[in-house]
Amino acid sequence: MAEFTHLDENGNAVMVDVTEKEITERIAVAEGKILVGEEVFAAIKEGGVAKGDVLACARVAGIMAAKKTPELIPLCHPLMLTKVSVEFTMAEEEYAIYCRCTTKLAGKTGVEMEALTGVSVALLTIYDMCKAINKRMEISDIHLLEKSGGKSGHFQRSISV
Amino acid sequence: MAEFTHLDENGNAVMVDVTEKEITERIAVAEGKILVGEEVFAAIKEGGVAKGDVLACARVAGIMAAKKTPELIPLCHPLMLTKVSVEFTMAEEEYAIYCRCTTKLAGKTGVEMEALTGVSVALLTIYDMCKAINKRMEISDIHLLEKSGGKSGHFQRSISV
Amino acid sequence: MAEFTHLDENGNAVMVDVTEKEITERIAVAEGKILVGEEVFAAIKEGGVAKGDVLACARVAGIMAAKKTPELIPLCHPLMLTKVSVEFTMAEEEYAIYCRCTTKLAGKTGVEMEALTGVSVALLTIYDMCKAINKRMEISDIHLLEKSGGKSGHFQRSISV
Amino acid sequence: MAEFTHLDENGNAVMVDVTEKEITERIAVAEGKILVGEEVFAAIKEGGVAKGDVLACARVAGIMAAKKTPELIPLCHPLMLTKVSVEFTMAEEEYAIYCRCTTKLAGKTGVEMEALTGVSVALLTIYDMCKAINKRMEISDIHLLEKSGGKSGHFQRSISV
Amino acid sequence: MAEFTHLDENGNAVMVDVTEKEITERIAVAEGKILVGEEVFAAIKEGGVAKGDVLACARVAGIMAAKKTPELIPLCHPLMLTKVSVEFTMAEEEYAIYCRCTTKLAGKTGVEMEALTGVSVALLTIYDMCKAINKRMEISDIHLLEKSGGKSGHFQRSISV
Amino acid sequence: MAEFTHLDENGNAVMVDVTEKEITERIAVAEGKILVGEEVFAAIKEGGVAKGDVLACARVAGIMAAKKTPELIPLCHPLMLTKVSVEFTMAEEEYAIYCRCTTKLAGKTGVEMEALTGVSVALLTIYDMCKAINKRMEISDIHLLEKSGGKSGHFQRSISV
Repeated sequence: MAEFTHLDENGNAVMVDVTEKEITERIAVAEGKILVGEEVFAAIKEGGVAKGDVLACARVAGIMAAKKTPELIPLCHPLMLTKVSVEFTMAEEEYAIYCRCTTKLAGKTGVEMEALTGVSVALLTIYDMCKAINKRMEISDIHLLEKSGGKSGHFQRSISV
Repeated sequence: MAEFTHLDENGNAVMVDVTEKEITERIAVAEGKILVGEEVFAAIKEGGVAKGDVLACARVAGIMAAKKTPELIPLCHPLMLTKVSVEFTMAEEEYAIYCRCTTKLAGKTGVEMEALTGVSVALLTIYDMCKAINKRMEISDIHLLEKSGGKSGHFQRSISV
Repeated sequence: MAEFTHLDENGNAVMVDVTEKEITERIAVAEGKILVGEEVFAAIKEGGVAKGDVLACARVAGIMAAKKTPELIPLCHPLMLTKVSVEFTMAEEEYAIYCRCTTKLAGKTGVEMEALTGVSVALLTIYDMCKAINKRMEISDIHLLEKSGGKSGHFQRSISV
Repeated sequence: MAEFTHLDENGNAVMVDVTEKEITERIAVAEGKILVGEEVFAAIKEGGVAKGDVLACARVAGIMAAKKTPELIPLCHPLMLTKVSVEFTMAEEEYAIYCRCTTKLAGKTGVEMEALTGVSVALLTIYDMCKAINKRMEISDIHLLEKSGGKSGHFQRSISV
Repeated sequence: MAEFTHLDENGNAVMVDVTEKEITERIAVAEGKILVGEEVFAAIKEGGVAKGDVLACARVAGIMAAKKTPELIPLCHPLMLTKVSVEFTMAEEEYAIYCRCTTKLAGKTGVEMEALTGVSVALLTIYDMCKAINKRMEISDIHLLEKSGGKSGHFQRSISV
Repeated sequence: MAEFTHLDENGNAVMVDVTEKEITERIAVAEGKILVGEEVFAAIKEGGVAKGDVLACARVAGIMAAKKTPELIPLCHPLMLTKVSVEFTMAEEEYAIYCRCTTKLAGKTGVEMEALTGVSVALLTIYDMCKAINKRMEISDIHLLEKSGGKSGHFQRSISV
């Protein structure tokens, strides 16, 4: 049971005490994708300016959501992110849009939840803007790609897009 | 281009005008899963009270996030949800936890983004509470399962868990 | 167990389904007090303009908090309050400041949590502004005074200030 | 004193009671501008994709802020906006970017504060994205252009851009 | 008048300047109770899983509210809490549930408002979940129990539960 | 193009990386005004207590909005403001109310957006409270007055009120 750092000895949810942890530079990169189907994919790809606005809107939503993480995830610490970026890649063979979010801070606790939340909300925003065309889109494969800084050292997931 | 209801004729993002739409009872059900791996799965399953608190915390997070949808997804309309519920199912063969979120309102626009956001944040919360054990968890297969009410009629996805 | 309307048949938290409930005019009045002690009481009472600003600030905080209720209380429905007011009365014999918050809407569910939240945050704001003088203040006796509209009829608490 | 609808008979701030008001379709249009200076103006105008992203980002910020109005303006009622749009026009002769925000709902109270807040935050966002180039930008002439619906009838400001 | 640190020399509300204050480890503990009456008390006590979910939900709400304090209390500084915990004790002789919230940070200003807000919202959440059974519940005796760190030294309230 | 610090090399919006920047004491002062017209000006000026409450309410709104800046302006960093103050001056010759907001922190990035947002929302709040009397009010001349701390040195605008 000791492994659930977010549960105290009685099994109750608790925000982990990080008061004594060192301030280090921490980076996290998360990624995920949305399978949009052929029609949406083509519409975005050929969309010119419009394409720009779908992804620009999703990018802004992802960045703002990363900042909102402690409001959304009950046991996350409030953090002062020093960088957030959100990037998209279009993968025609799957009719998918990949999203990668990088978060950074100099602080006492990691920023992977911020990166994962940024990815999730960016993808949900694409879903919202395209749902009139396709109701069968799917958001998938959201995971942590890389994480550095802090006691647990550098983490890198081998299989990635 | 006409199909992107969230883009005006110049390709600019816009919140769709629903003023004239009818108030009808609308329901949406979304679902998704998190692959937690064997160790986390066992810890939650055998956790007794603790298991309760991990999922109880994620359930509350999902319900609160569904209410926050218009703050997160830029072009979503503010809504007065009349019901939100979040349910979990543990699937041992995949070491996965499935999450299903149902949202409801009597209003002018659908609630599928609310259901999808509820699922996403509930799963992110499980991720957060278990990430000290496993950094390779994956959130996957988030999609709309069912939607009723409104002009576009009843939608049901055939393949589901 | 049936009485816990916020728990489903498995004991899980759920936002109650009010879709079918009638839209009626609903009013709630809540009240509470803060015991500030002699020194703070005198400072506020003799404060002139300053007194105005302590209470004006607490009033604004209470009104804004009533609007934030669905963000704070996990299972509260989002509502469109049509009125919020916050009033203070100074009770010298107890060195107390009483706060009363009235909330109103035409909707499907009651507004007592909004009134109670308005009172709580207004009193916390007084605490905050006076805590440099007295660390032993106490917020007390927060309760519902009156409630009307909706199926459960008119409720009035007999004992009140 | 009776004219301050947001002050009660004792001069205290209060959210006006609109419970009894009729639900009508209400529209508001507000506008304002930011004087960015020659260098920023040229950078945005020649920016191609970049220009798109500055204005796309400001547009999203304005739409999201319109939805946040009741959280920002203490006595504003929570509303369910049914439409928000934000448009920009570049005026070379002043090195200015004009912003116009249109808000709409079917409800009990007007939406001019939402339109004005949308304009303000869209312009602040342009300021933020360009402030590294010019610290002397100025946000100006924010006003209501048009308002319809509700008891006070149609309002149109004669002098406009 | 000098004692109201939140009022400037003209009696206007102001967020106190803490720029020059030292970063120290600061802890606060607040507590309060809700008198729920015999029926609710029994229902919670015998509730098994359900009891767990009422208190789990209230605990999450309290932790999230502690993080939201600077949004609720107008003159509170934004803070980076490094720990929040919320605990409940059931006191049969009063049919009361006691709530204790502990907050911690390494920062320039104290965290007692965060602890008091955590207690208040946790108790309001219990109220919300039980109000269908009893409309006469009362939230009471919310006060600071202990505070350490910072210039004013250690504070401990002698009378406690 | 390099000058748009908020756009990456592809013209995409990005939250600037400030991880490596030094923590210094930073101050910003912004100002703006609202032209309220003769009638509103007189009503506020002669309002006694009421005047107090209009401006007290706007002051609280401005302070709270300064804290909300990173939620409103998409690419602003979350910050821990150590001071916010909002002051008003009444200028009879223009029937204007001037607003000045000062923000301060010890941090890695400047606080001018916070000061500008505080001014904007304080003025919008005055607009809201007086709009029943005059629909032709105008918010104008919002600009940065002074800024110190950080790499770019001290900035002071010569022309001011």
